[in-house]
Amino acid sequence: MKTNRPPSGIDRRTLVSGLAALPALPGALFATSVRAQTTQSEALPSWNDGAAKQAILDFVRATTDQASAKFVPIDERIATFDQDGTLWVEHPIYTQVVYCLDRVPAVVAERPELKQREPFATVLSGDREAMAKFSLQDLEAILAATLTGMSVDDFEAQASKWLATAKHSRWDRLYTDLVYQPMLEVLHYLRDNAYQTYIVTGGGQDFVRVYSQRVYGIPPEQVVGTMGGTKFGYDKDGKPFLTKEPKLLLNDDNAGKPEGIHLMIGRRPYAAFGNSTGDRQMLEYTGGGAGARLMMLVLHDDAQREYAYGPAQGLPDTKIGAFPQSLFDEARGNGWTVISMKNDWKQIFVFE
Amino acid sequence: MKTNRPPSGIDRRTLVSGLAALPALPGALFATSVRAQTTQSEALPSWNDGAAKQAILDFVRATTDQASAKFVPIDERIATFDQDGTLWVEHPIYTQVVYCLDRVPAVVAERPELKQREPFATVLSGDREAMAKFSLQDLEAILAATLTGMSVDDFEAQASKWLATAKHSRWDRLYTDLVYQPMLEVLHYLRDNAYQTYIVTGGGQDFVRVYSQRVYGIPPEQVVGTMGGTKFGYDKDGKPFLTKEPKLLLNDDNAGKPEGIHLMIGRRPYAAFGNSTGDRQMLEYTGGGAGARLMMLVLHDDAQREYAYGPAQGLPDTKIGAFPQSLFDEARGNGWTVISMKNDWKQIFVFE
Repeated sequence: MKTNRPPSGIDRRTLVSGLAALPALPGALFATSVRAQTTQSEALPSWNDGAAKQAILDFVRATTDQASAKFVPIDERIATFDQDGTLWVEHPIYTQVVYCLDRVPAVVAERPELKQREPFATVLSGDREAMAKFSLQDLEAILAATLTGMSVDDFEAQASKWLATAKHSRWDRLYTDLVYQPMLEVLHYLRDNAYQTYIVTGGGQDFVRVYSQRVYGIPPEQVVGTMGGTKFGYDKDGKPFLTKEPKLLLNDDNAGKPEGIHLMIGRRPYAAFGNSTGDRQMLEYTGGGAGARLMMLVLHDDAQREYAYGPAQGLPDTKIGAFPQSLFDEARGNGWTVISMKNDWKQIFVFE
Repeated sequence: MKTNRPPSGIDRRTLVSGLAALPALPGALFATSVRAQTTQSEALPSWNDGAAKQAILDFVRATTDQASAKFVPIDERIATFDQDGTLWVEHPIYTQVVYCLDRVPAVVAERPELKQREPFATVLSGDREAMAKFSLQDLEAILAATLTGMSVDDFEAQASKWLATAKHSRWDRLYTDLVYQPMLEVLHYLRDNAYQTYIVTGGGQDFVRVYSQRVYGIPPEQVVGTMGGTKFGYDKDGKPFLTKEPKLLLNDDNAGKPEGIHLMIGRRPYAAFGNSTGDRQMLEYTGGGAGARLMMLVLHDDAQREYAYGPAQGLPDTKIGAFPQSLFDEARGNGWTVISMKNDWKQIFVFE
């Protein structure tokens, strides 16, 4: 199923980028017409014709046609998707980090002893420049204070409430609106073809689970993320509950992604989608299996409609979602497909 | 859905134990007739009529009937099952421990430095009485040497090979034959009613995954067990693989069961089945949710057809699978249902 076109096809496809100006499709994300058996010609309507779209169609055809030598039994059809930068916007800062920063005032209200203590004092000051200089240790202190110490039910309620109102400043839209329509179509198309679609994210597993069903149609048990421990106990009425503990079980990024996949799924995926070095090992692990395998990387090369960053292909080097030239070269060498947001996607967001 | 009959109903049901002598049903476990929509009157054919069977039927009726106040949406239908002593035989010793002991000679052949070292020397001597005196530390050394240090693929091959030939001495049968037919019927009946059925075992997650699909119809991603870490790396040809590490992530027993359920599933079960104190917290956690919840405990009270141990109800006290009177009393107090193997099950094993 590997495409014969090298990733440099991206440059050639700029010739047809005018297609991006086509009117957006009506966006009923979970409409029956999308969920029912989608034919190949109807599939992926927000994708321009090209190597990326074709790689997806070819993979699905090869693995679902019983007559194909690359047929994959339904039980084994597993596809994994990074979230930040692959399914939704990750710039200028990961959504979950925004959540944690926004959550600090409520935590300090409950624990006043933190008010004068760093890094909390800086967060409360609202000094964005000072926050940008936080060390990893500072960030970990903020994550621990805002993501642990409460019951799993309380955490879900807190995150749900925030997600219902917090907005991305550039689009003035809820974060859960900033989901890529073409990737939702891939999720639906794969599920229509009996693939189980998993999120495999460096973000917190419990955070993503709060909205994964509603936003992506992915249930909590199919979210693999950075995992913290919980502690079983009883409330004052003797009712059992779980408390989120500041104990890291698995950092689901880089090599942690295939490790998390084994832990949570126990099988090697047949398809994997990412957008940065954090996804490299997941794609390598996926590609290491026999038969047809689909490995794809989203390249953010559309500053006008979203963001442009690499530094592959001379795009700006940013701290979030690094896509270095070495990853681009590995993709080319291994037959992975690079998706150009600018050229492969007619529409970027679900709300367009 | 809670039954009004107290667990003491078990004693009354000894009156109808003659039903156990009825001829066994033809045992095509995965026959279409079982998997297709099973009516309530056809369900659970290996169960005698009584409080236990009725509790299962009532629970399924209440949670799947849209007109019921206790209706549960399909997405949320989660049922969890302990394995050892709940789905298959756990006496006289857990199957996985037998595997680890049997595996020692092969490990020593690869690592001769272990040959003279304890506890390996004792295992090689075959002295069962000395082995029975192993400390927890001894057992951990054996588990680490036989369950870790190899690739996940090699481990699966080793365990598969052993399972294909190793036999339980009492029945001279493969361990995977020593599965309880009535519990397989519960798994099928719940799945027929759109429940996801998970194993939640103190046993090793990767060990149970080797045979869970074949034996229980439960795929690897629905096996929650004691979890070890893996390490991503590359072989000499640059091919990526995972090595099983001697790093415990979660001991999926006692309080670890609800913690493992949250980690792997992210939802509270509506039904949970166990047979010992190791399952207590899982049943408490399940029962702590709103609406209809089904909590059941298998009591091994049939020395003739299987084993009899408690010490609840005056049964012998054994080290494996303790069911103390305190658990029996908690079941009675919380409306959990105790299953009497002797009285509730017409047939014990799938091969009868």
